[in-house]
Amino acid sequence: METIKIKTKSRPSEVYCGAGALKQAAKFLEKKEVFVVTDSNVFALYKNLLEEKFSGAHICVVPAGEKNKTKQTLFRILDEMLAAGLHRTSYVAAVGGGVVGDMAGLAASLYMRGVHLVQIPTTLLAQVDSSVGGKTAIDYKKVKNVIGAFYQPEYVFCDPLFLRTLPEREKKCGMGEIIKTGILEAKIGDRIRAAEGGLYGEEFLREITAACIRFKARIVEADETEKSGLRKCLNLGHTTGHALELLYGRRSHGEYVLIGTWLESFIAEGEGICTHGYAEEVRSLVALAEPKISVFRNAQDCIPYALLDKKNAGSGISLILSSARGEFREITLSSEQYSKYLRLLQGERL
Amino acid sequence: METIKIKTKSRPSEVYCGAGALKQAAKFLEKKEVFVVTDSNVFALYKNLLEEKFSGAHICVVPAGEKNKTKQTLFRILDEMLAAGLHRTSYVAAVGGGVVGDMAGLAASLYMRGVHLVQIPTTLLAQVDSSVGGKTAIDYKKVKNVIGAFYQPEYVFCDPLFLRTLPEREKKCGMGEIIKTGILEAKIGDRIRAAEGGLYGEEFLREITAACIRFKARIVEADETEKSGLRKCLNLGHTTGHALELLYGRRSHGEYVLIGTWLESFIAEGEGICTHGYAEEVRSLVALAEPKISVFRNAQDCIPYALLDKKNAGSGISLILSSARGEFREITLSSEQYSKYLRLLQGERL
Repeated sequence: METIKIKTKSRPSEVYCGAGALKQAAKFLEKKEVFVVTDSNVFALYKNLLEEKFSGAHICVVPAGEKNKTKQTLFRILDEMLAAGLHRTSYVAAVGGGVVGDMAGLAASLYMRGVHLVQIPTTLLAQVDSSVGGKTAIDYKKVKNVIGAFYQPEYVFCDPLFLRTLPEREKKCGMGEIIKTGILEAKIGDRIRAAEGGLYGEEFLREITAACIRFKARIVEADETEKSGLRKCLNLGHTTGHALELLYGRRSHGEYVLIGTWLESFIAEGEGICTHGYAEEVRSLVALAEPKISVFRNAQDCIPYALLDKKNAGSGISLILSSARGEFREITLSSEQYSKYLRLLQGERL
Repeated sequence: METIKIKTKSRPSEVYCGAGALKQAAKFLEKKEVFVVTDSNVFALYKNLLEEKFSGAHICVVPAGEKNKTKQTLFRILDEMLAAGLHRTSYVAAVGGGVVGDMAGLAASLYMRGVHLVQIPTTLLAQVDSSVGGKTAIDYKKVKNVIGAFYQPEYVFCDPLFLRTLPEREKKCGMGEIIKTGILEAKIGDRIRAAEGGLYGEEFLREITAACIRFKARIVEADETEKSGLRKCLNLGHTTGHALELLYGRRSHGEYVLIGTWLESFIAEGEGICTHGYAEEVRSLVALAEPKISVFRNAQDCIPYALLDKKNAGSGISLILSSARGEFREITLSSEQYSKYLRLLQGERL
């Protein structure tokens, strides 16, 4: 098991990553007042394990899925926290994927202006990305993550045991963020390309998860609240990814990020941000996880969602593009300019 | 005009205090994207002034009063922020009393995980206390401020011009927090006792407002999120005050704080926390603003609310008591012990 320290301005965080992390969590939370938030999927699979590891804890089970990352579910968690009589000294433990982590984290930040929080991510996506760094949120009025807070967990416990029951689609979802990290950090990209035995082998995942967390930790330490701009690099592929996710909502977040990264590599190339060769390199990395990009008939319909994206600072659509290995730039396109590139997703050529 | 800097860990804050502060606010917000939150009372009195000083700003008017410090009003503000198309770079300006400041501050902290915030307090309470220090919240399910965030305003502009239209009861409300500060800081207490021309003269208020802000600034700098315990001293009189406020809700927050401070001086004396002489000194300070403590027939009914107070860390009722000039201690009483003292509020003797 590896430990990774994250020294943010608001609160230091520590990540335990590897086999035994759940046991470590149970030991840490023993004798504390604990409020576990999990979802219906995780609870169906791990009810016994959770009740054994966190005996005496209140367990709050919310409906699974991004479509439930809503104000209603957030207040359902807060209602249960109140009913359980939690105090400022209590611990919220988010046991689940990104959706559970986002909502439980936001509830923990709001209840009595903030109680203790630990993240116990159960999906690959949450382990490599969303459980680390303190971003919490709900979706609201068709805008992704528009209501939220920066709130650092005190501990993150990433245990690979949960990945054994993870559906293929969910694994691919996590791979989307791993590939994204591989574009941002050349060494991680090289390691992905060199993966022997495929991208989903246990040993490879263990190693790449820790590498992704270490990378993210450095970014979050330097720019916790996305103010200096450095943290924005983590939004690579996300403007298009989020807009497609809001429009279609059928695939997972990470899959849409892969598709977004693919499309945005053409934008980077077309707008002269990167060379054709480098754009091809990005696309070859995406292809390792998503070999064939589907055709989206009405891709243009995602423009209104892209315009609502948080990253926009005025009119236009803001995009984070990779300009070279480990380098990125932010550009803003008008709807018309952006629309031209979306034709690629409709199976047309530029 | 005086300026007071507050160097908190999360974000530095600066307070402009005195005549001309509103003009300063208008100058600062000129050419920025501004979203003003105010309430129906302030808007009725200052519509023209606000439209002149913040021309081009979106003005969001919420219903006045603590009973509207709710989830519903919070989401009404967030809905209008979304409809106005605010970005992360936009400014929320809270123009009103403590209720407006609390809700607008919370909305600003949540929208896109935090936009810029300035506080323009219009009541004495908000000027001397609630606009400074970054506490934001709503009441929920009969618990005061149980959902909220610590979110520092970038600037606070305290202009005495607003106090001219302030009803007497609202002035007394602010005086409650001034008296509380006078108990916590002996020099301020002495200044209150020495006030020539009464407690509500313009010159005295100007001077004491700045002194109270300077005192609070030092506390908030040392313990922004009430973790070390130092900031808890600001809750003097508040456990009983909040519980009575939730039970009766007829008087203002500051009046209940005065009544709470009075009652809790007897608790401090009875529990051996302070001498009889010092308790009398506290009560004499309270009497300057609240000469006669009313009889509350069913004061015992406030116990369930006191038990829900955020300050409690387990069973029992947590109280912040002044043990001597400028000193305080936190104690926990059982409902039975607390109940005994409440008889004083019912006109009985101990």
